[in-house]
Amino acid sequence: MRITALAGGVGGARFLRGLKAHLDVVAPESELTIIANTGDDISLFGLRVCPDIDTLLYTLGGGIDEAQGWGRADESTRVQGELAAYGAVPQWFTLGDLDLGTHIVRSQWLAQGLTASEVTGRLAARWGLPGRGIRLLPMTDVPVETHVVLDEGDGAGEKAVHFQEWWVRMRAEVPATRFVVAGLDRAAAAPGVLEALRSADVVVLPPSNPVVSIGIILGVPGVRDALRGSRAPVVGVSPLISGRPVRGHADACLSAIGVSSTASAVAELYADFLDGWLVDPADADVRVRGVETAVHPEPLLMTDVDAAARMAKSLLALADRVRG
Amino acid sequence: MRITALAGGVGGARFLRGLKAHLDVVAPESELTIIANTGDDISLFGLRVCPDIDTLLYTLGGGIDEAQGWGRADESTRVQGELAAYGAVPQWFTLGDLDLGTHIVRSQWLAQGLTASEVTGRLAARWGLPGRGIRLLPMTDVPVETHVVLDEGDGAGEKAVHFQEWWVRMRAEVPATRFVVAGLDRAAAAPGVLEALRSADVVVLPPSNPVVSIGIILGVPGVRDALRGSRAPVVGVSPLISGRPVRGHADACLSAIGVSSTASAVAELYADFLDGWLVDPADADVRVRGVETAVHPEPLLMTDVDAAARMAKSLLALADRVRG
Repeated sequence: MRITALAGGVGGARFLRGLKAHLDVVAPESELTIIANTGDDISLFGLRVCPDIDTLLYTLGGGIDEAQGWGRADESTRVQGELAAYGAVPQWFTLGDLDLGTHIVRSQWLAQGLTASEVTGRLAARWGLPGRGIRLLPMTDVPVETHVVLDEGDGAGEKAVHFQEWWVRMRAEVPATRFVVAGLDRAAAAPGVLEALRSADVVVLPPSNPVVSIGIILGVPGVRDALRGSRAPVVGVSPLISGRPVRGHADACLSAIGVSSTASAVAELYADFLDGWLVDPADADVRVRGVETAVHPEPLLMTDVDAAARMAKSLLALADRVRG
Repeated sequence: MRITALAGGVGGARFLRGLKAHLDVVAPESELTIIANTGDDISLFGLRVCPDIDTLLYTLGGGIDEAQGWGRADESTRVQGELAAYGAVPQWFTLGDLDLGTHIVRSQWLAQGLTASEVTGRLAARWGLPGRGIRLLPMTDVPVETHVVLDEGDGAGEKAVHFQEWWVRMRAEVPATRFVVAGLDRAAAAPGVLEALRSADVVVLPPSNPVVSIGIILGVPGVRDALRGSRAPVVGVSPLISGRPVRGHADACLSAIGVSSTASAVAELYADFLDGWLVDPADADVRVRGVETAVHPEPLLMTDVDAAARMAKSLLALADRVRG
């Protein structure tokens, strides 16, 4: 079975780790292709940081800080302490020492002329993903960056900050009026991305942020069309439970684009290509026209790998049902 | 008193720390300008590393690994472990975590368009040097790199490696036939360098490597002429004791340029501008035409700051003598 998934960071990575654990039991020969969001990439201290790809690498490769959901286990911040001592800015983005190793080799390889896809392939090899049937692709090889236009109140005028500054430093507490993804409209999908969508047996949307993760990937030219034209079932997991994001600030992102924070409203965003939608028991009444809804028998909480694997099992069962 | 010194890494840094300690007692208002060798700079993992400047910063700023002579005290190598895990090369140059902070900010600031002088000034500010009357200047703002042409034996042909590869990985054990300093002949002295030589009350040559540290600085256009024309006494400390380098591989470097490893032969290299030469008791018979020789009352070993301070005291006394 060929499964293709779109993914952001923590939620996507945890779900896909559960999916992989489930597949290892029921269909060990499956191939999982992950199309990762790179819209929240950022350059810090001259180094290229790809937060979602790194979270996917570390989570799927066994190096993640479990409690935090991002960054490396057993991490330290000695280098960042030095950067602060030198007065280098910004200091609001935590760069751990082990994590910095990734950013340094990525930056070096990019400077040597490798594409983002090639770099990601090398990084994934170190984490053992190819040998386990997991292919990790950036959504595009073109550098794109999401900027957030802020509403700072009467007469303050418009101000835009990098997505990470809004997400990490401001904790998404300053209202956003819109997201501008510089370069996205001319960003070609990375090699293999459109093919992976077209040739999949199932396309999966993990419970990633519908605006700044999945929504950005859908903005890469050709991706949405490939999903609309997909023969395979496209099934997703709601990132919201009873109108609240399980994690992160999806509600603030949805609010910025004028969409209400409900499991049904998120499914509506995907309605032109979505076949099945897995929701929490608390959202059992969700109905979206043209989309088959299934209710997971327990809360949609990825408390551990087994819980995520059970969600993946429900989602694949739903895919079978809509395939008919 | 205005003192200007040329300096390489460990030997230069330890001597100048002693000189500064001595000055703090006898002439606390003195200004010490250090012209640092940048000929052994290297780019590693896309980061710009300036080994001599860093050794000077850490030694004079109180952050040096005392036993090793270079690198930071209380250092770790977690980032480098990651670089190795990713298969990034080279691995023969140790980059500690704290040390990497310096390389990262330096590289970022250079990429932002700051000159090497400006970057060095910022780094020195963090280490408190300006507030203590110490001005640290790179010899030039132009990137220069020393390459070593190796003699690998009959018929092997010529092969050149970066100086650091020869020095660190090969431990200078493969015979060198010559040093090529790419860019040096067109490298303008950094702002303040020639002025500091011309306006000094004393010019000091610490016991740095005469070929790949002092010798490189002397190759910067204008530096040697400024020394020849100096009104101030130019006095130096022999880096050799009884024909052996106190530390490092000065003998291998001297051999490559066809100079014997003796205190007198090194002084001959400087004879066109040198006024005074401080030697070890074991070299009390050294005579160099036109150069006043003084014998330090104890071995020229910088076992601690006090020992280096006593050497500096001897050297300044010699400067007074030749000033006459």
